[in-house]
Amino acid sequence: MREVARVRVIYGDTDQMGIAYYGNYLRWFEVARNEYLRSAGQSYRAFEAREGLFLPVVEANVRYHRPARYDDVLVIGAEIPAAQLRGASARFEYVIHREDGERVASGYTVHACMTREGGRPVRIPPELRATLLAAEQPQGGS
Amino acid sequence: MREVARVRVIYGDTDQMGIAYYGNYLRWFEVARNEYLRSAGQSYRAFEAREGLFLPVVEANVRYHRPARYDDVLVIGAEIPAAQLRGASARFEYVIHREDGERVASGYTVHACMTREGGRPVRIPPELRATLLAAEQPQGGS
Amino acid sequence: MREVARVRVIYGDTDQMGIAYYGNYLRWFEVARNEYLRSAGQSYRAFEAREGLFLPVVEANVRYHRPARYDDVLVIGAEIPAAQLRGASARFEYVIHREDGERVASGYTVHACMTREGGRPVRIPPELRATLLAAEQPQGGS
Amino acid sequence: MREVARVRVIYGDTDQMGIAYYGNYLRWFEVARNEYLRSAGQSYRAFEAREGLFLPVVEANVRYHRPARYDDVLVIGAEIPAAQLRGASARFEYVIHREDGERVASGYTVHACMTREGGRPVRIPPELRATLLAAEQPQGGS
Repeated sequence: MREVARVRVIYGDTDQMGIAYYGNYLRWFEVARNEYLRSAGQSYRAFEAREGLFLPVVEANVRYHRPARYDDVLVIGAEIPAAQLRGASARFEYVIHREDGERVASGYTVHACMTREGGRPVRIPPELRATLLAAEQPQGGS
Repeated sequence: MREVARVRVIYGDTDQMGIAYYGNYLRWFEVARNEYLRSAGQSYRAFEAREGLFLPVVEANVRYHRPARYDDVLVIGAEIPAAQLRGASARFEYVIHREDGERVASGYTVHACMTREGGRPVRIPPELRATLLAAEQPQGGS
Repeated sequence: MREVARVRVIYGDTDQMGIAYYGNYLRWFEVARNEYLRSAGQSYRAFEAREGLFLPVVEANVRYHRPARYDDVLVIGAEIPAAQLRGASARFEYVIHREDGERVASGYTVHACMTREGGRPVRIPPELRATLLAAEQPQGGS
Repeated sequence: MREVARVRVIYGDTDQMGIAYYGNYLRWFEVARNEYLRSAGQSYRAFEAREGLFLPVVEANVRYHRPARYDDVLVIGAEIPAAQLRGASARFEYVIHREDGERVASGYTVHACMTREGGRPVRIPPELRATLLAAEQPQGGS
């Protein structure tokens, strides 16, 4: 799984147990999705604007392995395993490590492909499909 | 200033100092604005839909007097002092107490009246003006 | 599943798709957990203080059935099915409806019972176990 | 004012008006404070741990000049003007621009220096004072 983003834990992310609040991981998964698509050559913003489609989350899952603390740098990996790219849905998988290598959390989000107006599920168009697969490939170099 | 809303501080609102994070007070001010308008006989949602106008925040200020902690119930008062209802802007004022009477925070937000499409400032329409003044009046009674 | 809490969706909960952001549901699950325990006769705050134990989340899952929108009132049900109350962990289940009865989301959180200091998993003490089971019972009655 | 941090606006930062929610700016001010102190040669985490002191916010102010939108990169500048470094308090000032140079927001936060235990205000110790002034100086150069 490729590293796609880094975030630093701020005070506003922590709770009174002194660790990052469990809901914030879904924000960090979103940061990773955005960067994953950007690294594949298009931003999600451009995709939405051009296609009139969007990819709402229909399921999210997080496993919390070790706490993240204030000022920790979190390294987020993301991928769409080929087998998880279905006709009208796709599943992103994520792993979050601290910089020291400790695994903090892992999880996934499942996305449907929907028209903005009707809210109707549609097949993922070939261009997006190709992009999502391209993002999986190692970048650059032979 | 009338009490318009109550919220209970959750884990997700606290930070590692064991107190409510300073950014969350702007959420609580929004909760109070919504309830203030509702108590005046219309929801902000209805206003936006009907008028094609909205009231974006152009300035926000918070003074933090005492910390709020996990599980505290916060009692939020809000008002628009008559002198703060200008032609094309309005200023809401807020005070937040704990249930035991301790003052936790106070502040204000300044709102412009804007068209949704053009993002142009416009005068506050008379109906909204009347509503905002009505909300100031004591409820019920003869 | 008993209704344990109601929340109203504010602007700060929505995103630019005009629906509640997917990460906020974990906050609403927390609101429901807190109220569930309170209805069982003790607050989570009191439990933590007295026992030196806490119940960190080790897994969270949300399924998003229909969008929640600004100003919607969300009715949150929560329970710990008896079979989900294990030796050192417990699983809360949640369902969120709109007031009009539409199911918006469902999910669960799995919690370990840990000592605050050592971060060591321990068995759920009998008093808490009894409380969690009591919360399942219908309130009132003869 | 020096640039100290960059953040990219995510879906979770926006609201249904399609712009960044007004409360999030206080998170971005915190990101900038953290980086400002780090660039001065110490992290806020290290300061808290060593000194047993912390710098809670006693007032915050934001002016919203233009909206920030999904996927915008925000460039955050921060400084403590020398005149704003008082005996027991300090005032950070912030300006946020989009990458294209448009000014999005500006504001300030006022911080008291407090002991962690007693919650008593104390004078800012000389080492921290020197650090805060050093952070103002241009980095590197001849």
